[in-house]
Amino acid sequence: MFKQVSSEDIEHLTSLVDVSNWHIANQEEFERYTHDHTEDFHFTPDLVLKPNNTEQVASILSYCNHHRIPVTPRGAGTGLSGGALPIYNGIVLSLEKMNRILDIDVQNLQVCVEPGVINEELQQELFKHQLYYPPDPASKGSCFLGGNVAHASGGPKAVKYGTTRDYVLNLEVVLPNGEVIWTGANTLKYSTGYNLTHLLIGSEGTLAVITKIVFKVIALPPFNMLMLASFNAATDACKAVSALFRAGCNPSVCEFVEPIAFELSAQLTGLTFDQKPETKAYLLIEVDGKDLAVLEKDTEEIYEVLDQHHCTDMLLADSEEKKNYFWRLRRSIGEATKRDNIYKEEDTVVPRASLPELYEGVKEIAARYQVRTVCYGHAGDGNLHVNILKDDLSDHFWNHEVKEAIREIFQLCKKLKGTISGEHGIGYVQKEYMPILFPESQLQLMRNIKHAFDPNGILNPGKIWE
Amino acid sequence: MFKQVSSEDIEHLTSLVDVSNWHIANQEEFERYTHDHTEDFHFTPDLVLKPNNTEQVASILSYCNHHRIPVTPRGAGTGLSGGALPIYNGIVLSLEKMNRILDIDVQNLQVCVEPGVINEELQQELFKHQLYYPPDPASKGSCFLGGNVAHASGGPKAVKYGTTRDYVLNLEVVLPNGEVIWTGANTLKYSTGYNLTHLLIGSEGTLAVITKIVFKVIALPPFNMLMLASFNAATDACKAVSALFRAGCNPSVCEFVEPIAFELSAQLTGLTFDQKPETKAYLLIEVDGKDLAVLEKDTEEIYEVLDQHHCTDMLLADSEEKKNYFWRLRRSIGEATKRDNIYKEEDTVVPRASLPELYEGVKEIAARYQVRTVCYGHAGDGNLHVNILKDDLSDHFWNHEVKEAIREIFQLCKKLKGTISGEHGIGYVQKEYMPILFPESQLQLMRNIKHAFDPNGILNPGKIWE
Repeated sequence: MFKQVSSEDIEHLTSLVDVSNWHIANQEEFERYTHDHTEDFHFTPDLVLKPNNTEQVASILSYCNHHRIPVTPRGAGTGLSGGALPIYNGIVLSLEKMNRILDIDVQNLQVCVEPGVINEELQQELFKHQLYYPPDPASKGSCFLGGNVAHASGGPKAVKYGTTRDYVLNLEVVLPNGEVIWTGANTLKYSTGYNLTHLLIGSEGTLAVITKIVFKVIALPPFNMLMLASFNAATDACKAVSALFRAGCNPSVCEFVEPIAFELSAQLTGLTFDQKPETKAYLLIEVDGKDLAVLEKDTEEIYEVLDQHHCTDMLLADSEEKKNYFWRLRRSIGEATKRDNIYKEEDTVVPRASLPELYEGVKEIAARYQVRTVCYGHAGDGNLHVNILKDDLSDHFWNHEVKEAIREIFQLCKKLKGTISGEHGIGYVQKEYMPILFPESQLQLMRNIKHAFDPNGILNPGKIWE
Repeated sequence: MFKQVSSEDIEHLTSLVDVSNWHIANQEEFERYTHDHTEDFHFTPDLVLKPNNTEQVASILSYCNHHRIPVTPRGAGTGLSGGALPIYNGIVLSLEKMNRILDIDVQNLQVCVEPGVINEELQQELFKHQLYYPPDPASKGSCFLGGNVAHASGGPKAVKYGTTRDYVLNLEVVLPNGEVIWTGANTLKYSTGYNLTHLLIGSEGTLAVITKIVFKVIALPPFNMLMLASFNAATDACKAVSALFRAGCNPSVCEFVEPIAFELSAQLTGLTFDQKPETKAYLLIEVDGKDLAVLEKDTEEIYEVLDQHHCTDMLLADSEEKKNYFWRLRRSIGEATKRDNIYKEEDTVVPRASLPELYEGVKEIAARYQVRTVCYGHAGDGNLHVNILKDDLSDHFWNHEVKEAIREIFQLCKKLKGTISGEHGIGYVQKEYMPILFPESQLQLMRNIKHAFDPNGILNPGKIWE
């Protein structure tokens, strides 16, 4: 299917980029490109290329398309579905050198960036102008904006502000044949033929390589209040979530966390976090806006709803230090779980009010298969991350029975009119579950779309539905 | 290319729907389906079918696909780009009988509707639950939600709440071969393969026929305040718009209106609206929310910014009656212009801060071609409707020179990083201008996507890029 990469290919391809951008100093550095943050998978590329600009990306793709060499675009490698794994070897196209913020347009409240800009770096730059780009995956300190677009990433703030999708106005992309196009316009509204921008968002590098992104940004909400609510029953916490929105509350964060998640996180970070043994779940809730008095009122309304759902404790983070403490605990859960254990991370999502049924179903399935799970996530969006721990399960059990358990969890998602990924993408690890959601003909329709962009199938092969 | 519809075809196709649904009582009723609200175009279908349910739509499409009979899906026919015109005759597939609100899920803040539900009817039903579906095209009293999705429609509220796109969670559609699929899941987040939902939004009935829509809805903001600001220079009004957002104001409506637009509207509606001769532009601005004191503060902030931009008068609508009066004036502009004159409506959109440049450019081009224009629209989104009046221009001038003027306006849009349609779609009347925006290869990419869905090209042929 693909051509074996030859020394002539390597010679030609490396001539297309600056020499420092392909030379891999040592084995250790090369090793970085064989995996991302997904479980413990490793695939070895033939060559890692680090283009500096759109033209170099175009030259590389044009050559690889002509010679049928697979190309796996790579952001920061923080993905959790194996999107950056070079399954068929070939070229890893790292966008790390294309990391410039090209324009901050304060009049239009728009920015233009290259794909290798780190999410938090953009946020910090915008802060100087009192502007705000809300999407903030847990990995915001290291993940690239290009990867965020490729995966339609979310984060805690999505509950009020939407996901990456809601901020992308326009994309410059390189098609597999090397052609460079802009997908749309830099406008807030767009009804001008097929929306290629929205088709490319979440397409996981299988249709084109993103080389520039125009985002809309908003005025920075100057104030926020953060609180942590405890519950003696996880179901109460889950039910409280939909009640909040039904009551007209509009929190900027609404996260569900199991006690074990905070426990692992406290171990990793060295933070002290005393938990009552009777506590079975937490909700981390934030409100934000430009008027402190309004936020205080919002907080009262939220407390009222939580109280009706048997909230037992409510801690208000009354200083920046305390807020940072809660956020560090929350944001370290993924890394802490990884440090503790090999795990499979499932990114389940259902309509918000079905969260209790999802949570209980996950726990019932886990109990039946005798696997431990750590659950947490963006409850306000109905998005629950289910980490299944390997503990001392045998490899055979891990690769067979555990996959059956995941299949049952995903069937439950479908039954609840949800889906198997809310923000992590399908990539390499979830593709075998796609038939749970879609009939073969619908997968074929996606393959036809792929073919319309990439007739030779060189871009990120082995992902999503292949 | 297409098969001529025979009496056998008619016999078979009419047997697929209830008899009352295809029988056209008289010529006058039939005539309704030969045009929409676009200029004065008329195309005559061979047959009008009005299916009751998804299965009937599937049977019709399956038959027409097999026999290569063109099918033009039709909502309420309120479109302004000719999307519902049966250019190649064949079947008009009217969704008017599929007009049920199937579910209002107050727990999940979601609704499920058929495509023939009138926008305002959904709003009224939701009002009973204190829920809100914001997208509200000017034709909300008659347009169908299916058409809104097909055109990614906007409306005045889009400036704060987003367009139709931002509310669609999932679609049931019938593919041209008669297969029925759900495009996604009923979730607020989605990263599960190619986003067919977003690809279909705005695809103008060329890829599939929408048969069910799941929308998210939000809690109804109980209060709003509406104001009308006058300016002696249109450019000041335009500049004030981006200054508002830069200052952190978040109006729920921010409309630009030229005096002539209100004059025509007052004539049509019979409302009295006295204008000062020195006034050259208005901004109609609304704020909404759940706290009146906050709205008063918002209003003051807005007034401050407008004042800095030489606002000469500020009328606050201090009663529901007065609000309705302003809204009736605003919403009747399109109809009033149509009643007054034949016109071409252009749906220009640019980054918000480029609005002054767009407006001045439009006026300069119009002056050069000696045509009259009426400009108004959703200034907060950078979306300016430019109505070009026929007056007593010759047909030749109308069909040649005026098209050149439009071409210049659209070239200006592109130069300003905008596009040629923000919310009306491309349909039949704008397709000749698509090459201004896109290279041929990009149009071919769209055609390839079309081919992936509709290899026989039966769905709404002659639109967008054909």
